Amino acid sequence: MEHVGLINAADLSSPRRYPVRRRSNGKSRLGFDRLFLKRLWRILRVMMPGWLKTTTLLLIVLLLLAVGEQFAIYYTGLVPSQFYGVLTRKDANGFKTVLWKGAICITAAAMGRSFIQFVCGWLHVMWRKYLTDHLHDSYCTDIVYYNVNVLDPTLDNIDQRITQDVERFTFKLSDKVASKLIITPFTVIYYTYKCWNSIGYFGPVLIYLYFFVGVVINKLIMSPIVHLVYKQENLEGDFRFQHMQLRVHSESVAFYRSGELEKQRLSLKFKDLLSTQGLLVMWNFLLNSSVNIFDYVGGILSYLIIALAVFGTARFDSLSASDMSVLISENSFFCLYLINQFSSLIDLSNDLSDIAGYTHRIGQLMECLHDNHNDQHDLPWQAASETVSHVTDANTKGLCLQNVSYCPPSSDQLLVNDLTIELCVGKNILVSGRTGVGKSSLFRVISNIWPVVKGKIQWQIPYSTHFVFFLPQRAFLVQGSVREQVAYPRSPADVCDEKIKDALSMVDLSHIVDEIHFDKQPAVNWDDILSPGEVQKLGFARLFCHQPRYALLDEATSAVDEETEGKLYDMCQDLGITLVSISHRMSLKRYHHVELCLTGGGEWTLASMQ
Amino acid sequence: MEHVGLINAADLSSPRRYPVRRRSNGKSRLGFDRLFLKRLWRILRVMMPGWLKTTTLLLIVLLLLAVGEQFAIYYTGLVPSQFYGVLTRKDANGFKTVLWKGAICITAAAMGRSFIQFVCGWLHVMWRKYLTDHLHDSYCTDIVYYNVNVLDPTLDNIDQRITQDVERFTFKLSDKVASKLIITPFTVIYYTYKCWNSIGYFGPVLIYLYFFVGVVINKLIMSPIVHLVYKQENLEGDFRFQHMQLRVHSESVAFYRSGELEKQRLSLKFKDLLSTQGLLVMWNFLLNSSVNIFDYVGGILSYLIIALAVFGTARFDSLSASDMSVLISENSFFCLYLINQFSSLIDLSNDLSDIAGYTHRIGQLMECLHDNHNDQHDLPWQAASETVSHVTDANTKGLCLQNVSYCPPSSDQLLVNDLTIELCVGKNILVSGRTGVGKSSLFRVISNIWPVVKGKIQWQIPYSTHFVFFLPQRAFLVQGSVREQVAYPRSPADVCDEKIKDALSMVDLSHIVDEIHFDKQPAVNWDDILSPGEVQKLGFARLFCHQPRYALLDEATSAVDEETEGKLYDMCQDLGITLVSISHRMSLKRYHHVELCLTGGGEWTLASMQ
Repeated sequence: MEHVGLINAADLSSPRRYPVRRRSNGKSRLGFDRLFLKRLWRILRVMMPGWLKTTTLLLIVLLLLAVGEQFAIYYTGLVPSQFYGVLTRKDANGFKTVLWKGAICITAAAMGRSFIQFVCGWLHVMWRKYLTDHLHDSYCTDIVYYNVNVLDPTLDNIDQRITQDVERFTFKLSDKVASKLIITPFTVIYYTYKCWNSIGYFGPVLIYLYFFVGVVINKLIMSPIVHLVYKQENLEGDFRFQHMQLRVHSESVAFYRSGELEKQRLSLKFKDLLSTQGLLVMWNFLLNSSVNIFDYVGGILSYLIIALAVFGTARFDSLSASDMSVLISENSFFCLYLINQFSSLIDLSNDLSDIAGYTHRIGQLMECLHDNHNDQHDLPWQAASETVSHVTDANTKGLCLQNVSYCPPSSDQLLVNDLTIELCVGKNILVSGRTGVGKSSLFRVISNIWPVVKGKIQWQIPYSTHFVFFLPQRAFLVQGSVREQVAYPRSPADVCDEKIKDALSMVDLSHIVDEIHFDKQPAVNWDDILSPGEVQKLGFARLFCHQPRYALLDEATSAVDEETEGKLYDMCQDLGITLVSISHRMSLKRYHHVELCLTGGGEWTLASMQ
Repeated sequence: MEHVGLINAADLSSPRRYPVRRRSNGKSRLGFDRLFLKRLWRILRVMMPGWLKTTTLLLIVLLLLAVGEQFAIYYTGLVPSQFYGVLTRKDANGFKTVLWKGAICITAAAMGRSFIQFVCGWLHVMWRKYLTDHLHDSYCTDIVYYNVNVLDPTLDNIDQRITQDVERFTFKLSDKVASKLIITPFTVIYYTYKCWNSIGYFGPVLIYLYFFVGVVINKLIMSPIVHLVYKQENLEGDFRFQHMQLRVHSESVAFYRSGELEKQRLSLKFKDLLSTQGLLVMWNFLLNSSVNIFDYVGGILSYLIIALAVFGTARFDSLSASDMSVLISENSFFCLYLINQFSSLIDLSNDLSDIAGYTHRIGQLMECLHDNHNDQHDLPWQAASETVSHVTDANTKGLCLQNVSYCPPSSDQLLVNDLTIELCVGKNILVSGRTGVGKSSLFRVISNIWPVVKGKIQWQIPYSTHFVFFLPQRAFLVQGSVREQVAYPRSPADVCDEKIKDALSMVDLSHIVDEIHFDKQPAVNWDDILSPGEVQKLGFARLFCHQPRYALLDEATSAVDEETEGKLYDMCQDLGITLVSISHRMSLKRYHHVELCLTGGGEWTLASMQ
């Protein structure tokens, strides 16, 4: 034990702090500005990495199809007016011609629409693939996932951004923007021209005016509704959460017999929710009234416009009744399609603001992942692991800490000051101290996932699971078969069956192999299969399966009885695994050679044990 | 310690088992059968408890509005044909009349629609309120929430049924069925008659035939798509879950540096998801093609039908071109509206099957809650708590267990056989034994939330938090202010500020009061504010706030160090709280007078301690 006591109480002059990362404000600056364009451009470059890539070609095909569809729609829209012509003239031959032409136009329009939807769907899938793969690459590199989720959580819900936001973004972009946004301005101009041409200037003017009034009224009513819908969603979430809480903690509630109190709490949330929903019903009445009137009036606006032309000007005086009916049908198509295009522009504006939101969320994520990846190499503690010397069996030293001080990454409160300690084969270390004193943080520091304020951490062996293995209080249960579960974090293909079964029998968990298929994910969650004590045993099974040189145990036996604990520690000794344990249990002292006691405020003591 | 040792090793002859509840199969029998009608009737009786209730009156108003709307739609639909008439005749006065009539019809139709939507929204909210309140009442009574969630989980996701299914059910019922389903058959008959009358028998026949073909084709394509969508949703969920796992366990992954393995696992899930999405794009192409062609052809079908009448029969020979255009416009309205009504019938059939699903889910829940509530009074262990004698301070006995045997509710494996023990003021009991031997179950049994196989459990005091308090390994953190948190499970209004602050200072958590508003729910989750050790301290704060006669501690100090543990136990002693502790820690022995050791297989030993 003598060679561990390299205590060196140097003072904390000029502490070298790790670089404080700039925190980008997630709320502000989320509009259609230069930042939006920059982020969109960055995302588009990922989604379409070159001219000859599938996605780029698909987009070009989509645009061509959209133009073609407009022609088909134009000719299809004129079919009814031709029917009016031939039917009012009772022209049987003409009818056949129109029927044929109509059938062709309709088929073209219908199939054009279908192909567009098909290409959009395909684009959606491909874009999502490119973008998600790209994000996975940056997210899983190094320990970026830990940094962005735990160490430096500047962004909320990163998992949701990768799974849901990317999905929504690529869907909206392919379904709405790609085919519609680019085409609609042209169709609006074209149908304005057609309308003007056949009726006169007041046709388009009336429609534009009508449309403008409609938009203004809608916007006025919409803004409180958007607010209420948002609030309602939140309250709905609160209500569901309250129910989930009751479900998860039903045993505690049953022990207290506090069902009545829980009911009051549920009813309170529910009442809030319902009153918001009631308000929403009122506001929706206003909105629906305006939308319904707008829609219905739009339907006869075209006749009003035609009437103005018929009664106000002399240009239609010479037309026969049959020609008039053709003209009415034709013009009502132009007017209705123009109104329709305007409406879809409005809808698109909503979609666009969604897309802007997603663009910012995904753009922020890309920047954050990129920054974190770069930062890795700037941090002083990363450099240490690069100096790993080649490992030999004769190498009994594992790790040297020299004058290490650390504090939580987001705080100045020093947890441990100036710690010097060595980890050698065969010398187990017990780390003790009160809750919150920084025991678990010590493991984070020596695993290089937390920075140090000052000092040096030098691994004499590679930091990999072949040499160093970590067991937390609750082992991370992966979704997978028994093989994957025990082999974790190694790939299951790398570990033979025997080793896994041996490891399970060593921790008295052999029954799992009988109950669960060895190579298939069980139908129920692993959390439901194993009790907390069994989860800790499983952690040891992993440890025995890997048989590393060193193991870091963070309260890894807190849920098993002392007898089992003793057996597990004995096995570690038999397998020659050197342990660093964090524990509150004094009974563990006899398995360790040195006790490192953290006493708070940066202080610590080191003592040899019998 | 002498009066605790009433050990009585009677044999286990004729074990009285608690009644096995019939398990209704949740999957089978979910169609439109008698059971559906019975369940729907039961739900409707809750939603509309009488003729003069708001919801019943609203429903009647809704039906009247729906009939009125149909008249408005009929007259509105004829407005364009009247425009054709006056415009082709260039009849300025006639136009004004038509315009006025049209404006009135349109306003009536638009406002009718708006009022219907308004009443539907109102019905939705009211129905949801009635149904949810009813379910809350049954769910929170007694310990029904525990029985249905944990003890006898015949039904899945009860919280979801109350929050989401009720919402969806009442929404669908108010939005679709109430106004549309009841009206549509009549409108279909009426427009069939109108079409037949003005064109001839082949009009409706052609439309029915066209419609039938469309439905058959759609159904054929739909069934694989429904399957694929379901699969895609599942895979989407898997992918999200995998990401969530990585997020939650990012520290473990960082310790193992197994980001690469996690990426492989993510990519695997994502690949599965994308390939299903790709398949869906293909199938959707077929579906979209059929739907688009169906829609477009439907638009000109009316002209074809009119052409058949014009060229095939002699009845329109005498009509002028102007009258012909009126006729065409009129008939195209009849035909289109008939097709439209058919389409909405199809949509309704989908909604109906949704509603059937929700009806069964909510109906099952009501039955299950009702059964569980009734069962309560049948179970032998419930009767015991009714014999509670009036409590006096002189009463030092708390609880007598006589020859109690118990096993897990869903199993035959006997945990403890024939246990006789007494709980008296001032005599602390330590319950020890291996993991899974039935220590926590003992608490469940003496709290009457688990049944016993045989024997008698007699509380000499009322089982309420004033006398008996339970502390689990992890205290149930409620959503609420500091006051609510500490006062739980008492209503926060019943506990004065001083008591709460005292309790917090006793467990060394006074800093919470400084950091968090006393009467407001903090912005972050309580789980993020408190460490596991602090959560356990909070549990003791609750205990000290209630100061009951007895406390049941289930590993309630496993996350705090031994020094803190000692302080907490000393305080219990000072406050005169008699303890029953479950613990693995041997250091706790000195705070107890008796050790009950469960040794497995039903065996147990009882020993006095110094």
